[in-house]
Amino acid sequence: MPWTDVLGYVGAFLTSITFIPQVYKAWQTKSVGDLSTWMLIIVITSATVWLIYGIGAMLFPVIIANSIVLILSLLLMVFKFSFKKQDRES
Amino acid sequence: MPWTDVLGYVGAFLTSITFIPQVYKAWQTKSVGDLSTWMLIIVITSATVWLIYGIGAMLFPVIIANSIVLILSLLLMVFKFSFKKQDRES
Repeated sequence: MPWTDVLGYVGAFLTSITFIPQVYKAWQTKSVGDLSTWMLIIVITSATVWLIYGIGAMLFPVIIANSIVLILSLLLMVFKFSFKKQDRES
Repeated sequence: MPWTDVLGYVGAFLTSITFIPQVYKAWQTKSVGDLSTWMLIIVITSATVWLIYGIGAMLFPVIIANSIVLILSLLLMVFKFSFKKQDRES
């Protein structure tokens, strides 16, 4: 396997797990006031675009990584609205 | 240009701008307590991996997108430590 392929798999794995600690922290603290709603909107949009790209180009690491990112960022968006009342701001 | 290429460029553009609203919000509020340090560590690591991958595979959109993500996530990490005293937690 070429070293670029290895790096691609490592990158895809790291991208997949990016939001796991953020979801965990948000769930533990029930506090998401410092998270940017616009960042979440962009992450949800870009993960959707990359997912369609991955399906179109038949790149399975891209499909898997962005499916996980999409689910976790949607979850953070749900938290953003669920935990709103406990926050300093929306 | 194939439609997958177009989506790839759109995805790379969206990935590049992901952390701009978060950096702006953090700078405005001087509050980053809800941001996960582990998320930032993973983003910095994955952007570095993708950057090396992009250089190795000569993929310029990957190089540009991940350079921007790397700079912005490093900036958020600097904020994470600079704004520590004003925060509820580290």
